[in-house]
Amino acid sequence: MNTIGQSLNLTIFGESHGPVIGCVIDGLPAGESVDTEFIEKQMKRRAPGRFPWETARKEEDQFEILSGVLNGRTEGTPLAAVIFNRGQHSKDYDKTRFIMRPGHADYTGNIKYGGWEDSRGGGHFSGRLTAPLVFAGALAQSILAKQGIHISAHILQVGSVLDTSYDPMGMDPSVWNKLREKDFPVLSDEAGQAMKDAIAQAKRKKDSLGGAVECMAEGVPAGWGSPFFDSLESSLAHMMFSIPAVKGISFGDGFDFASMRGKDAMDPLAYQDGRVVTEANHNGGINGGISNGMPILFRTAFKPVASIGMPQQTIDISEHKNTVLTLEGRHDPCIVPRAAVVVETAAAFVLLDAALERKRDRL
Amino acid sequence: MNTIGQSLNLTIFGESHGPVIGCVIDGLPAGESVDTEFIEKQMKRRAPGRFPWETARKEEDQFEILSGVLNGRTEGTPLAAVIFNRGQHSKDYDKTRFIMRPGHADYTGNIKYGGWEDSRGGGHFSGRLTAPLVFAGALAQSILAKQGIHISAHILQVGSVLDTSYDPMGMDPSVWNKLREKDFPVLSDEAGQAMKDAIAQAKRKKDSLGGAVECMAEGVPAGWGSPFFDSLESSLAHMMFSIPAVKGISFGDGFDFASMRGKDAMDPLAYQDGRVVTEANHNGGINGGISNGMPILFRTAFKPVASIGMPQQTIDISEHKNTVLTLEGRHDPCIVPRAAVVVETAAAFVLLDAALERKRDRL
Amino acid sequence: MNTIGQSLNLTIFGESHGPVIGCVIDGLPAGESVDTEFIEKQMKRRAPGRFPWETARKEEDQFEILSGVLNGRTEGTPLAAVIFNRGQHSKDYDKTRFIMRPGHADYTGNIKYGGWEDSRGGGHFSGRLTAPLVFAGALAQSILAKQGIHISAHILQVGSVLDTSYDPMGMDPSVWNKLREKDFPVLSDEAGQAMKDAIAQAKRKKDSLGGAVECMAEGVPAGWGSPFFDSLESSLAHMMFSIPAVKGISFGDGFDFASMRGKDAMDPLAYQDGRVVTEANHNGGINGGISNGMPILFRTAFKPVASIGMPQQTIDISEHKNTVLTLEGRHDPCIVPRAAVVVETAAAFVLLDAALERKRDRL
Amino acid sequence: MNTIGQSLNLTIFGESHGPVIGCVIDGLPAGESVDTEFIEKQMKRRAPGRFPWETARKEEDQFEILSGVLNGRTEGTPLAAVIFNRGQHSKDYDKTRFIMRPGHADYTGNIKYGGWEDSRGGGHFSGRLTAPLVFAGALAQSILAKQGIHISAHILQVGSVLDTSYDPMGMDPSVWNKLREKDFPVLSDEAGQAMKDAIAQAKRKKDSLGGAVECMAEGVPAGWGSPFFDSLESSLAHMMFSIPAVKGISFGDGFDFASMRGKDAMDPLAYQDGRVVTEANHNGGINGGISNGMPILFRTAFKPVASIGMPQQTIDISEHKNTVLTLEGRHDPCIVPRAAVVVETAAAFVLLDAALERKRDRL
Repeated sequence: MNTIGQSLNLTIFGESHGPVIGCVIDGLPAGESVDTEFIEKQMKRRAPGRFPWETARKEEDQFEILSGVLNGRTEGTPLAAVIFNRGQHSKDYDKTRFIMRPGHADYTGNIKYGGWEDSRGGGHFSGRLTAPLVFAGALAQSILAKQGIHISAHILQVGSVLDTSYDPMGMDPSVWNKLREKDFPVLSDEAGQAMKDAIAQAKRKKDSLGGAVECMAEGVPAGWGSPFFDSLESSLAHMMFSIPAVKGISFGDGFDFASMRGKDAMDPLAYQDGRVVTEANHNGGINGGISNGMPILFRTAFKPVASIGMPQQTIDISEHKNTVLTLEGRHDPCIVPRAAVVVETAAAFVLLDAALERKRDRL
Repeated sequence: MNTIGQSLNLTIFGESHGPVIGCVIDGLPAGESVDTEFIEKQMKRRAPGRFPWETARKEEDQFEILSGVLNGRTEGTPLAAVIFNRGQHSKDYDKTRFIMRPGHADYTGNIKYGGWEDSRGGGHFSGRLTAPLVFAGALAQSILAKQGIHISAHILQVGSVLDTSYDPMGMDPSVWNKLREKDFPVLSDEAGQAMKDAIAQAKRKKDSLGGAVECMAEGVPAGWGSPFFDSLESSLAHMMFSIPAVKGISFGDGFDFASMRGKDAMDPLAYQDGRVVTEANHNGGINGGISNGMPILFRTAFKPVASIGMPQQTIDISEHKNTVLTLEGRHDPCIVPRAAVVVETAAAFVLLDAALERKRDRL
Repeated sequence: MNTIGQSLNLTIFGESHGPVIGCVIDGLPAGESVDTEFIEKQMKRRAPGRFPWETARKEEDQFEILSGVLNGRTEGTPLAAVIFNRGQHSKDYDKTRFIMRPGHADYTGNIKYGGWEDSRGGGHFSGRLTAPLVFAGALAQSILAKQGIHISAHILQVGSVLDTSYDPMGMDPSVWNKLREKDFPVLSDEAGQAMKDAIAQAKRKKDSLGGAVECMAEGVPAGWGSPFFDSLESSLAHMMFSIPAVKGISFGDGFDFASMRGKDAMDPLAYQDGRVVTEANHNGGINGGISNGMPILFRTAFKPVASIGMPQQTIDISEHKNTVLTLEGRHDPCIVPRAAVVVETAAAFVLLDAALERKRDRL
Repeated sequence: MNTIGQSLNLTIFGESHGPVIGCVIDGLPAGESVDTEFIEKQMKRRAPGRFPWETARKEEDQFEILSGVLNGRTEGTPLAAVIFNRGQHSKDYDKTRFIMRPGHADYTGNIKYGGWEDSRGGGHFSGRLTAPLVFAGALAQSILAKQGIHISAHILQVGSVLDTSYDPMGMDPSVWNKLREKDFPVLSDEAGQAMKDAIAQAKRKKDSLGGAVECMAEGVPAGWGSPFFDSLESSLAHMMFSIPAVKGISFGDGFDFASMRGKDAMDPLAYQDGRVVTEANHNGGINGGISNGMPILFRTAFKPVASIGMPQQTIDISEHKNTVLTLEGRHDPCIVPRAAVVVETAAAFVLLDAALERKRDRL
């Protein structure tokens, strides 16, 4: 179903070429201020058209709040918001209607919905559906920030270029604030330039690139999450795999754990200035599915954009035959630069939900 | 909450040192035969005590079905089952009650439950809680097998030793059948021996090892899953992160995608003998969150066992002071060999749920 | 939370004086035609301004579908729809903002939402929120009609005037079709006239009247529903108590059962023309929470409209003092005539959900 | 599905003639003391065999807690409990296996579960399944009592005999305490005696009687519940219709509202000793689906027991023919005296859930 969350529910609706895309957020606590400026800023970071290698299509991504907010504060009732779709060239898609793009959801969507779905521009599967997700997540992020919880993400990898990793023990506020202001959120600007070059090169070759995003949440108190079946890892992973093109997630040392020895993977506990801390953070701030008070740290892997300019073998379902598809138009060679803010805000949504869930632990 | 699933619900209960651990499975279709022999076999593969490096504790893991089954068939009503806890030495844990084991859920559980939880043997956080999960999953697995859907897992990695990867395009039935009969489920027995040696060596050093499990589901038809927010990847990941020590999951090429180019990551579509297939399977059988009819393929990373014999810095919460903990008794140096069947059966549960969810797509 | 349903989810959002009210329907099967003409007709039956005794405010109740429908067919993706709010006179409510109207949700909403809620016109509690409910329900009703399932409701009671009861054994199609065409849906037009007179009289006295609606669903096959905890009665009641002013629901003989003897309450079973029928229908078509193939029959009680023209004792929360409120403006003396279509469509929504749930009973 | 609740989940399992019936309660706050004595007392009030007119079968209804409780306190982890089935005479049911008892769930269960269900003694549909419900509810009731919230129920009606109604404005603690001690919970012992006589007479005639139970919850603070779709009325009704034989529920003046005028149905608000009260309680303590701080008051109607000693027309599904069934053995002529405690405890479960839900209204 198109709803996620336990105490805080997000429902997403809309198709790429329909009149709007939008969302309903239910379960927001009443009286929280809605920082529209911050939300707009985050949405702009997701919107296409900022980079030279990007598609010409210009999505405005201006949201309109339809309910649940009065005088700039949440009412506690469901917040519905829409983003109007403008400037779609639906005709571009007409000729490819029955030609399934490999690596996309064209074929699987066709099977699931029996061909009744609007497949133009990817329809309900479009990456554009991440716009309402960023809207909801940015709102959650601004509410958490007032509680001293800060979530930020950077581009960890694009193709073979790697950015510096986050310090697992924590991050200077000046760093996360700067990341959000950067047009290309990396810790090492040198790596960032190399990534940009790699993307531009991929574009010239009509090819695309995959990558990875690393996300950190600081200030989450110990005690959020559950052992079964709503571990923080389960909840964050459930959300992250809703972002198109995400094919992997790992927490703390993640897949590196596989080749590690126990003694090198330890997070010793200690009292420090009256607080409990761990002296390392291999576990990415989560033990037994529950936050331990240290920074929460995870990585998501993105596959290369499936729309490439080279001819591709595929099927034409109207004639039940094999065919060759050569996509025209301009396509993003890499969506990772725009994905960092999606990961960051989506994580914020999950964490605000966990904060509310935590309220129920005591009567 | 301790329940997972959409159409098929699994609720797990029990603590390591309580009278029983168990589960309730709700939403099972009526009239399915319950293959107790197969379930027992799978549960034995999870039970400790089979390997020379394992702990002395012998868990019988005999389940008793309390409801929902009549004359060997599901009734359609909730199936409750319990596994009796026997031979726990609760006294062993008394002295460590207030000393939090690093890398475990002792501290986070204490914060969440306010110290009211039974922490003996890990309590509700114990790896032993995977026994009812294997019970439920093995039942699902046997039901799916009758539909031609076969799920199997092998040890992909232990420390620095790697097993051969699955062929992403599919697997010979003789292979998966053999895996389930092996005491150490690997594709390459040579790699298996090297893994065993590495584990024995870690044990001698009072250390532990991490690893990875690779899982494949063959025969899943196209059309299962959803784009938002219950993609097959979301559902499988949600489940996998409920298995203690899992810290990463990836589908298809997973984190390798990050460094790949689009043209090398393509899964061209083709009609082949009247069926739609992909000619490669980088995506692990899932596009847009929905199965495409090809084998579903994913990997899970396990962190090294946190209980090691070396002295560890930690805290004593009864006296609010730092202390050093040296765990006595024998502890598994690596849980990955026993984890393969947990991954495999847990995946089966998620897939049977997806099969039932799929029924609702049409009136 | 503001979502209802198992396989079919309805989320309602909006406030009486916000820009829109609306809903998202998730889980609709793909390929169902959307009978907008029928939906509009049903929505007009709910809209105010049709009767001489009604308020002057004219609500257009024109809906706009934002997603999930392509070429007049459901896509299987979430259907979002909005109804624009027009002509609200928010100023009328300014002076009463802190004066809690007795019998309304002003005070309870203020406590729940901490005063952050938009209370103008009842805000999110407004009876106007039944408009998206009728939208969703009318769509469900038209889908069920194509399956041979027909749902209709009539005004059973207004004040002391009673309409004829439905024949519990079933209803002539000509009857239900006529009911939907009537401006005042009653089986006996004589009773209808007496009801109208009673309402007009109540209005003259600045008073209001309660009433009851009776609903019947014909053609529901045996086997829908569950014993625990989603009996058809539970699901229908859950929905009905979401309709403002509903204070009671009963199935079949309902509260009359309390004074009955077993022998007079029997529904003998019989084969009749190859079908199983009951020879009476005291149980209203439901046994053990599951439909038995006979007409489903239930009644809902509505309390008198709380907004009356007489002075009422109440509180002013801005000054923490008792006060007297005399409501100005015109208020409906009885909402039951408009409520019949709300009951009928809301029941349709629940039954379409049950139809989809039923699909999961077999693999 | 067999689970109910939002923040607090109850899953019920078992069949009348299986080894056990039981439940899992998930979401209990940690550290609450488990008053086993009170729970046992409440369960005894539900158990059969206390009245001269009851069946000979003696159900012990002794529960065993399997998890989630340590040293008499909830751990916060799932609480599983079972009640062993003893002394069932399954053979009694063999001959009637294919003969559907009218008014029971035999036929509808057979359709739903395809004949795979255990129908002996009503199987999963048995009234005996209310035992785990009383267990869970009595635990909730004792937790709420410590918060000053008291829930009690009395027999309002048996056949044509009516007990005094509760004072809608509230109840003396000495009254509710006495009700729980009475073997026959009525406010007027005279009415109670007349009810007993009516039941004994019905029994002599091999007939049965319906009735009604009235329930009151005192001390519930204002602010619990929601407008859509989880109004307190919706949640309580959802639960009540899970109790076998319940066919109606009403809140406050309920169906009497239908014939009332607005001026007679008013609950004026007032400050009284610094608290907000209503000066009447026609609404039964709920406005807009949310508690208003006044006593919550509702009534449930029970149909007469369907098992009567007279010959009944019905069907034999093994031979697809009509037949006559004459039930042998002793059957309860009226279950209302035992149902009062079921209503009372089930209501407590819903209210504890609402208490936990209320925690999420603020961050």
